[in-house]
Amino acid sequence: MILHGYFRSSAAWRVRIALGLKGLTARQVSRHLRKGEQAAPDHLALNPQGLVPTLEVAGQGALTQSLAVLEWLDETQPGPRLLPADAWGRARVRALAQIIACDIHPIQNLRVLQYLKREMGQEQPAIDAWARHWIATGLAAFEARLAEPAAGRFCHGDVPGMADLCLVPQLGNARRFGCDLSPYPRILAVEAACRALPAFMAAAPEAQPDAE
Amino acid sequence: MILHGYFRSSAAWRVRIALGLKGLTARQVSRHLRKGEQAAPDHLALNPQGLVPTLEVAGQGALTQSLAVLEWLDETQPGPRLLPADAWGRARVRALAQIIACDIHPIQNLRVLQYLKREMGQEQPAIDAWARHWIATGLAAFEARLAEPAAGRFCHGDVPGMADLCLVPQLGNARRFGCDLSPYPRILAVEAACRALPAFMAAAPEAQPDAE
Repeated sequence: MILHGYFRSSAAWRVRIALGLKGLTARQVSRHLRKGEQAAPDHLALNPQGLVPTLEVAGQGALTQSLAVLEWLDETQPGPRLLPADAWGRARVRALAQIIACDIHPIQNLRVLQYLKREMGQEQPAIDAWARHWIATGLAAFEARLAEPAAGRFCHGDVPGMADLCLVPQLGNARRFGCDLSPYPRILAVEAACRALPAFMAAAPEAQPDAE
Repeated sequence: MILHGYFRSSAAWRVRIALGLKGLTARQVSRHLRKGEQAAPDHLALNPQGLVPTLEVAGQGALTQSLAVLEWLDETQPGPRLLPADAWGRARVRALAQIIACDIHPIQNLRVLQYLKREMGQEQPAIDAWARHWIATGLAAFEARLAEPAAGRFCHGDVPGMADLCLVPQLGNARRFGCDLSPYPRILAVEAACRALPAFMAAAPEAQPDAE
């Protein structure tokens, strides 16, 4: 497998963690987002959105959209499951993952911030406040859901899964934007449990070959 | 089942189509988004994000996040399947759905547009241009993927599924913002096939009890 990503992309980071938890390795191809390498013709041919991650699977083709990639990995690859065995639990974990993957990350990612600056003429402090606003709004709801009985050492019970894979990278973004994370003690406890695991450590941006 | 939604919410619209395709009915509770009813305490108790849709299931609890709701319906309810039988096909359909549910809709929904206006002081023409930009960017990639061999009368083969459920409501938003849809003939052909089906017609905003 070949993972087209970028060390700082939180969506690619999710997939790196999943590969690690499953004990899989993928060759990494770096697509430098600030240089626009994700929109290079050879990558667009794999992924018409020109976003990372893209996971190339030998003999099959290219998978896009990180949550779809995670589901595919879970359905087809051996190793620990990223989703619970029961349908209600799966719905809860998917909803947690989507709080981040739908309602936080896309609103604060690079292309959106660039539009605010270039097309709307916003100054950097207003752009940073925007990012912090959407991160805080989403994390507050996420924190509330970690009070549910289904939560445990991790977002759902005592094993890491798809929600944790989304949460840890989002917290990386939160810190880059200077968010105050003190209102989220349950989130921070889950993050600490995740960061104790080798798969999470190995997937961190600073551990990637293209880290700056 | 009780569906907390709003006639114009494209995320609630997705769930209404799915219920119709499955032959299910749910009592609808309208949460007027412009009046902030989605953030009423009784709804926040069900869904800490204060967003629609929320699907209450008797004896079980509340499901949130439209894509997670669609997966749960597909896993637990009888009727036509919303996802293909093969893992690669499921990954493709989920990725198509997520182009819309992650990378278009959250960036152009009401709360984001309100922030652009109130906190960033943007004028309405710039806000409308913003919405059209993200819709066009996403639909162009979606259109490219409808050239793949797996596409058929619908987004994936010749039966409607999760990607179609996301596409049709997004096109409703696109028209409200005045997007030019002529660059997307494949998308328009799929939409026409969907709109010929009673479940899609019955789920349309103008057919809802809270339509204005």
